[in-house]
Amino acid sequence: MENKKIKIGLIGLGTVGSGVFKTLQSFNNVEIVKIAVRNKNKKRNIEGLDEKIITDNPYEVVNDPEIQIVAELVGGVEPAFDLIKTAIKNDKHIVTANKELLAKYGEELFNFAEEHNKVVLYEAAIAGGIPLIMPIKTILAGNKINKIKAILNGTTNYILTKMDVQNASYNQVLKEAQELGYAETDPTGDVEGFDAAYKITTLATIAFGKRIKIENVYREGITKVSPEDMKTANEMGYKIKLIASAELNKDGKADVRVHPMLVGKSKTLAHIDYVTNAVSLSGHPVGDITLSGPGAGEFPTASSVVGDIFAIVSELDKSDYILPMMRCTHEENAEMIDISDTENKYYISITANNSMGVIGRIGKACEDNNISLASIMQKEVEGNSSARITVITELCKEKNMQKVIDIFNNDPAITEVNSLIRVQL
Amino acid sequence: MENKKIKIGLIGLGTVGSGVFKTLQSFNNVEIVKIAVRNKNKKRNIEGLDEKIITDNPYEVVNDPEIQIVAELVGGVEPAFDLIKTAIKNDKHIVTANKELLAKYGEELFNFAEEHNKVVLYEAAIAGGIPLIMPIKTILAGNKINKIKAILNGTTNYILTKMDVQNASYNQVLKEAQELGYAETDPTGDVEGFDAAYKITTLATIAFGKRIKIENVYREGITKVSPEDMKTANEMGYKIKLIASAELNKDGKADVRVHPMLVGKSKTLAHIDYVTNAVSLSGHPVGDITLSGPGAGEFPTASSVVGDIFAIVSELDKSDYILPMMRCTHEENAEMIDISDTENKYYISITANNSMGVIGRIGKACEDNNISLASIMQKEVEGNSSARITVITELCKEKNMQKVIDIFNNDPAITEVNSLIRVQL
Repeated sequence: MENKKIKIGLIGLGTVGSGVFKTLQSFNNVEIVKIAVRNKNKKRNIEGLDEKIITDNPYEVVNDPEIQIVAELVGGVEPAFDLIKTAIKNDKHIVTANKELLAKYGEELFNFAEEHNKVVLYEAAIAGGIPLIMPIKTILAGNKINKIKAILNGTTNYILTKMDVQNASYNQVLKEAQELGYAETDPTGDVEGFDAAYKITTLATIAFGKRIKIENVYREGITKVSPEDMKTANEMGYKIKLIASAELNKDGKADVRVHPMLVGKSKTLAHIDYVTNAVSLSGHPVGDITLSGPGAGEFPTASSVVGDIFAIVSELDKSDYILPMMRCTHEENAEMIDISDTENKYYISITANNSMGVIGRIGKACEDNNISLASIMQKEVEGNSSARITVITELCKEKNMQKVIDIFNNDPAITEVNSLIRVQL
Repeated sequence: MENKKIKIGLIGLGTVGSGVFKTLQSFNNVEIVKIAVRNKNKKRNIEGLDEKIITDNPYEVVNDPEIQIVAELVGGVEPAFDLIKTAIKNDKHIVTANKELLAKYGEELFNFAEEHNKVVLYEAAIAGGIPLIMPIKTILAGNKINKIKAILNGTTNYILTKMDVQNASYNQVLKEAQELGYAETDPTGDVEGFDAAYKITTLATIAFGKRIKIENVYREGITKVSPEDMKTANEMGYKIKLIASAELNKDGKADVRVHPMLVGKSKTLAHIDYVTNAVSLSGHPVGDITLSGPGAGEFPTASSVVGDIFAIVSELDKSDYILPMMRCTHEENAEMIDISDTENKYYISITANNSMGVIGRIGKACEDNNISLASIMQKEVEGNSSARITVITELCKEKNMQKVIDIFNNDPAITEVNSLIRVQL
């Protein structure tokens, strides 16, 4: 490494930014020369931080001619996108943790970067500290990856784990998670699956080598999962997890979605608890691999940002076309399969009057719609005359399942279809 | 990618070599132009293989002026080392799966390669298809890794899993594994821990950034693990695994070893079964991550060889100093801790006469040597008057434990110390 330090600019000095600053302190090949923050007067207790390099104008960072690499760590579409484009125009390489920008404007961003012969690295945007994007693009480059099953959101995994362990309701655990700082005051982005959908969109795009459009990614959150579902799933040998899933079928069509799933206890993902993330990839020739670790947090995320910075630094003076393997190379959009055209295995929880013939009608509705049942279980509900019926189906068409749910909703003896959760094969 | 194909030479067309050949068939940026085999006349059923590129003289591969990358896939120290050095002298980059050569002569090999400005990549040498070496050297480059716990040998993990599942003896399962091709006719390299020791030596060298000398790596195989140990461990909440372990203490001294361990069922490694491998790394800033997948086999290993080849190919025409992050940069040898100077938690299985006072003397021997007991369990052995006593200690000095074992061996009431197995904390 040369004696000359590479100059870095940071946009954002929140949790991730602080972690990056602290981590880079112990390396002498790079130097952070400017940091943009929202509030210049905020008291920050960061050792070694010279207040003089702090600005509240992020354009001072992206326009600084000394800076060769800009790390964008604020998130959201604007002003992040304009800042990144300005930095690229000003001849800077980009490291970002911005999953929303990548999912919504990845194509535009990467095309813009390529036009200016600059790289955009984003290991930190997906699964925090877990090595994922760089391995897929480098050491796994000989693979055709056709399946991803992942836990990509720490907040929802924490909530589901706590609901399971404490047999508590979603609302109760959410409140606790908010108090601990694991969930935001407005938890929508996490609990409704938006965050995981952003991440699986970009991850599948890279893994499949075809662009996935986020508007075609099916998304369902965890707010309807009940402690009763958890308990029943457990009894049947499953855990309930928010799974980000992407599969490429034989015809090259992509099925990408985020929704709760029953995951059999023999699978690795069933044992990924609390804020840990994990990604299982299947491909040829590698087979099945699983990468797990901290999906968020100051230092784990900093590990990925710093790794990206070092990758750029290592080649800055070696070549005018750096990191060829890390470039965006695919121009094709994936043809995508709508959720209504998929086949799944289902868990259904129904509350019904304890009247004659309900089980028979459930069975008939399924049979009439080509749905085989793997198991059916009826339990009395204490204190009233109703019953809770749990059904697990074999693999069947989503369309047929929706028809059956309609039939159930119109059956006078069925009080409520409590839950319909897909089951991982 | 340019139209010009990069020319590749293979040494070895066994399991891994065939996988590499088959995998590269579907890429058009590279071309295998020569393959060295032991027996030219052996019938090979490999689609697309032109017999004309096969030679039984490996020097034809390393001396071929057309070839830019040589993949050495035969293993063992010689002639592999001389072939690799000849190839390097002839201006070729190297990809190898040779864990023995790396562990024994890594320093000499990497120094030689650097003198000739050539890279030696070896993802396939450790943990087969699992992305490990390249991630540690690139995206995790900002980390100080200080702990590795890994299952690096598929044969022994298969045997231990089968012993556990079938409650069978080591010899019985070994025979079965040999019949299935999971264990070699002479299984010594696997079952005595040599293979895992080679791998952890190189892995710890890279992760710690200090050279580990294999002669200082403590090694103990699985041949003494009994079905009774398995059963007792299970009852106590543990699995028995052959763990390759490396830790760097606060003073920068390295403790590197391979031996069976009791692994608590709450740990990920306890659930890595059959031929799967897994590596858990701890470091700062990333925290704890675990990477798991197939540790061997035709295609998984080919995935890593091909990934290394593509990494070299991607930079061949871009720079005269390629892949700076993948170079060997450390010159320091690690100061190493001898096993006798370590502290461990132990599981001890003892057979004793069912006579008065044995438990008391066991307790006293431990107390006299500063060893606290976490649990002690005595069971009658059916059919005779002896008892099986199982002890789990708290953390204590290996030296003191060896003294206690001496005392036990000299106690007339103790028939045998059946097992002494360390327990993962």
